[in-house]
Amino acid sequence: MQQKTSQISVHTKGRKLYDITPQVTAWAESSGLGTGLLTLYIQHTSASLLINENYDHDVLVDMEAFFNRLVPDGDPLFIHTVEGPDDMPAHVRSALTQTHLSIPLLEGKLALGQWQGIFLYEHRHIASHRRVILHLIGN
Amino acid sequence: MQQKTSQISVHTKGRKLYDITPQVTAWAESSGLGTGLLTLYIQHTSASLLINENYDHDVLVDMEAFFNRLVPDGDPLFIHTVEGPDDMPAHVRSALTQTHLSIPLLEGKLALGQWQGIFLYEHRHIASHRRVILHLIGN
Amino acid sequence: MQQKTSQISVHTKGRKLYDITPQVTAWAESSGLGTGLLTLYIQHTSASLLINENYDHDVLVDMEAFFNRLVPDGDPLFIHTVEGPDDMPAHVRSALTQTHLSIPLLEGKLALGQWQGIFLYEHRHIASHRRVILHLIGN
Repeated sequence: MQQKTSQISVHTKGRKLYDITPQVTAWAESSGLGTGLLTLYIQHTSASLLINENYDHDVLVDMEAFFNRLVPDGDPLFIHTVEGPDDMPAHVRSALTQTHLSIPLLEGKLALGQWQGIFLYEHRHIASHRRVILHLIGN
Repeated sequence: MQQKTSQISVHTKGRKLYDITPQVTAWAESSGLGTGLLTLYIQHTSASLLINENYDHDVLVDMEAFFNRLVPDGDPLFIHTVEGPDDMPAHVRSALTQTHLSIPLLEGKLALGQWQGIFLYEHRHIASHRRVILHLIGN
Repeated sequence: MQQKTSQISVHTKGRKLYDITPQVTAWAESSGLGTGLLTLYIQHTSASLLINENYDHDVLVDMEAFFNRLVPDGDPLFIHTVEGPDDMPAHVRSALTQTHLSIPLLEGKLALGQWQGIFLYEHRHIASHRRVILHLIGN
């Protein structure tokens, strides 16, 4: 049994879903492992992770439209406003999505479904530098 | 340390929570492992996984009522409508619940709480064939 | 490769986010392991787990305000009312947050981001005794 770790840096340019499937898949599938478990962990609370459909780009547009309506920027409900009107909504959006994902590795391939992609969901409007830790265990 | 993998197929017949606790538990607890980590991974973006109360069936009815109100079918907000009025809501419901679950195995038993069940949450109205990958590591 | 397991008990005193970062970190970082994967699993369906900002306490207040508005107690939508007006909302809040979390261990330290804390989110108003299972695998 072996473990491998790595890190992905994503330079985000505002609120949206960033497809990180290629980098993640390339790293996991070049590990030399056949069977294992990949875990992604994002070290932030205003950006998150999501498995989502990666075929029709409209799905990403609609996903953002939904979260934008559910957790509106500048909501007068919030008292934590010192970091801007999109900061507390970013924390709520993170809570409603994922800080970590685990995906099995089978026969050297990530077990993603046919229409699944792995996304980093940036919830802030400002550009940011986001870090995702990758951990793989298997043999 | 060992790994074992398997796959569950669930033939769904419309939107609801399907209890998969018996199959998952039977597989994990017949693995011969004493201590480990079980991961379930669903290869879809319009069906998801959820740990939920499995005692009173009304909880499942109410859970569905909540998601139905929060993410209504045919919402005019959505532009991805080509696959039907329940498809984009299905992607949003998946994003709000889980694509994977991890549950420890202790003394040969899954560490589920007394009232916890493992559910596949089908979000489409049409019948589907859903696949869940099981990965177990331990000894 | 080794595995270690433990259990945390949290005596909650009503609905709020309880910071369990110190206990979790202390246990994982005294394990003697350098690289690994920590999984937390809560054995309940009316309390959950969440990674959240742990710097400004107002974030916790706002998070609760958001969930309180999204899933109001005593909502006439719900038929599962036998355990009180906050019980079904507690199940929904659990479904919208996490029953398990996985966090990599790197160089003997949990890979939490600078502003991240690990919280047990109690969703019931009554005092409870909550159990979180810890599972660590690595070497």
